[in-house]
Amino acid sequence: MVGRKLVEALVARGEVSGKPVERLTLADIVEPAAPAGFAGKVSTVATDLSDDGVAAGLVAERPDLIFHLAAIVSGEAEADFEKGYRINLDGTRELLEAIRLEGKRAPYKPKLVFTSSIAVYGEPLPAIIGDTHHHTPLTSYGTQKAIGELLLADYSRRGFLDGIGIRLPTIVIRPGRPNKAASGFFSNILREPLSGIEAILPVDDSVRHWFASPRAAVGFLLHAAELDTSALGSKRSLTMPGLSATVGEEIEALRRFAGENAVKLIRRQPDEAIIKMVGGWPQNFDASRAISLGFKAETSFDEIVRAHVEDELGGVLPA
Amino acid sequence: MVGRKLVEALVARGEVSGKPVERLTLADIVEPAAPAGFAGKVSTVATDLSDDGVAAGLVAERPDLIFHLAAIVSGEAEADFEKGYRINLDGTRELLEAIRLEGKRAPYKPKLVFTSSIAVYGEPLPAIIGDTHHHTPLTSYGTQKAIGELLLADYSRRGFLDGIGIRLPTIVIRPGRPNKAASGFFSNILREPLSGIEAILPVDDSVRHWFASPRAAVGFLLHAAELDTSALGSKRSLTMPGLSATVGEEIEALRRFAGENAVKLIRRQPDEAIIKMVGGWPQNFDASRAISLGFKAETSFDEIVRAHVEDELGGVLPA
Repeated sequence: MVGRKLVEALVARGEVSGKPVERLTLADIVEPAAPAGFAGKVSTVATDLSDDGVAAGLVAERPDLIFHLAAIVSGEAEADFEKGYRINLDGTRELLEAIRLEGKRAPYKPKLVFTSSIAVYGEPLPAIIGDTHHHTPLTSYGTQKAIGELLLADYSRRGFLDGIGIRLPTIVIRPGRPNKAASGFFSNILREPLSGIEAILPVDDSVRHWFASPRAAVGFLLHAAELDTSALGSKRSLTMPGLSATVGEEIEALRRFAGENAVKLIRRQPDEAIIKMVGGWPQNFDASRAISLGFKAETSFDEIVRAHVEDELGGVLPA
Repeated sequence: MVGRKLVEALVARGEVSGKPVERLTLADIVEPAAPAGFAGKVSTVATDLSDDGVAAGLVAERPDLIFHLAAIVSGEAEADFEKGYRINLDGTRELLEAIRLEGKRAPYKPKLVFTSSIAVYGEPLPAIIGDTHHHTPLTSYGTQKAIGELLLADYSRRGFLDGIGIRLPTIVIRPGRPNKAASGFFSNILREPLSGIEAILPVDDSVRHWFASPRAAVGFLLHAAELDTSALGSKRSLTMPGLSATVGEEIEALRRFAGENAVKLIRRQPDEAIIKMVGGWPQNFDASRAISLGFKAETSFDEIVRAHVEDELGGVLPA
């Protein structure tokens, strides 16, 4: 989802760091759609980065800029241990190795933007988590992301590539239909009522978490692509800014946009399993390092809802 | 070196956690010597853990306790990128995977003691480094150890094994001949003069670092093997206790043991490359977590020198 929006943004702006976007190679496990309105060359590939030779084939085109986005999400990486490690760890390592080996043939040092996650942090968590808080992931997904950060730093230090890792907040409002992710309700309770559909809220209004919109996520990726990484020193990964807010604040924003009838579409149905899981999630971060480097996120749920209405609903609420 | 001493200690005590040591399998890249005086079954194997099927073959014997010690050291892992990753990362992962897959055949959950390193920590370092300081390794070796810690925690959390990682201090006095390691002088300036041989000191007397004896290192490994890991929670790796001391304190201990003539065998020959490297090394740690769990190290250089004299020189200084 973020990948598709990133491609649209790259096509719309037409340049990165003042260099024209002449060629796009889009690789995913299912063949991605080619973007509309792109004058340059585009290849779309359905492939598995962890398969032998795949990364080498993609890197052989010597792209100047590579975005490596999340692959197997948290729930699936937890349910399927082997698949999670194969895609999230081996896939990442294959990509890094392909870049290193390509650079042995002839000098090559692309910019690599790696999406990490706040899942690298685990209990016990302080109320506000600093950029240098230690990594004790509580999931295999978080472990795989933390390892990706370590590899990215070492490959960058050795001069094989110019890497930056960005730890994304939980993205709301996710477009599309409700999914099975435990965090899905954060999006569902806004997206569904905004379209006149009922949504289930499995936790209390007081639950606090860390958010940014899909629009902000695309902004992070583009800013990371253009950032001079010499400012990062040896710490190549950083926590992106976000909004620390409660479910209650989400609901108040919904009320302001769509009124009491929309709020009434939220059905409270406590789910002990989700309540327990969410209880261990981070609530707030100190992202001052990223902010000082120019990364920007929303500062209220009104902004997050507005981004959804503008980007997904054509700027108007359904009647 | 620590591996050989560990085997001797296992044979001498004959039990771990009250269970007799009935069988030893010693695997290394060169065939290890079988220990003297062991009544049980012993196998010695010259092998490479990162080769296909090797870890599975070793694990097929279903040992109750596995010690996974350091493989490619820091300097070599930095000089040979591929070899370091192959042995230190792939080798570790092959071992973890072999254990997981063996457990799929029939229930199996061995204790695994993994030796990590203070090289997981990098600049900027506080004067005293806490157990939860974040990992920003400045070498490929430190990166590989930090990844090993993450994998150990995840495999333990998933119930595939019962892991504990111990971050060893710099080990002094290393027996044997001077080697090329940048940290070698910490041992050389004691070991060589204690045997009447000249040694080179490339840094200033004020240099402070973090030490434990080979005897203490063996003690850490055995204590880790017997420790109930339920006390570790999700943080499966911990910094071992050690002695924070200066080169000057080393020299004073040498003077007390072997007199002024021994001290005169230390030749001061500043080496800018080593001075710069050592300047970035950690100086002191807060190991209270490990201490509270019963791990013990020396508290003075006199103890460290005495351990060497007793364990390596038969308790007497050469005339």
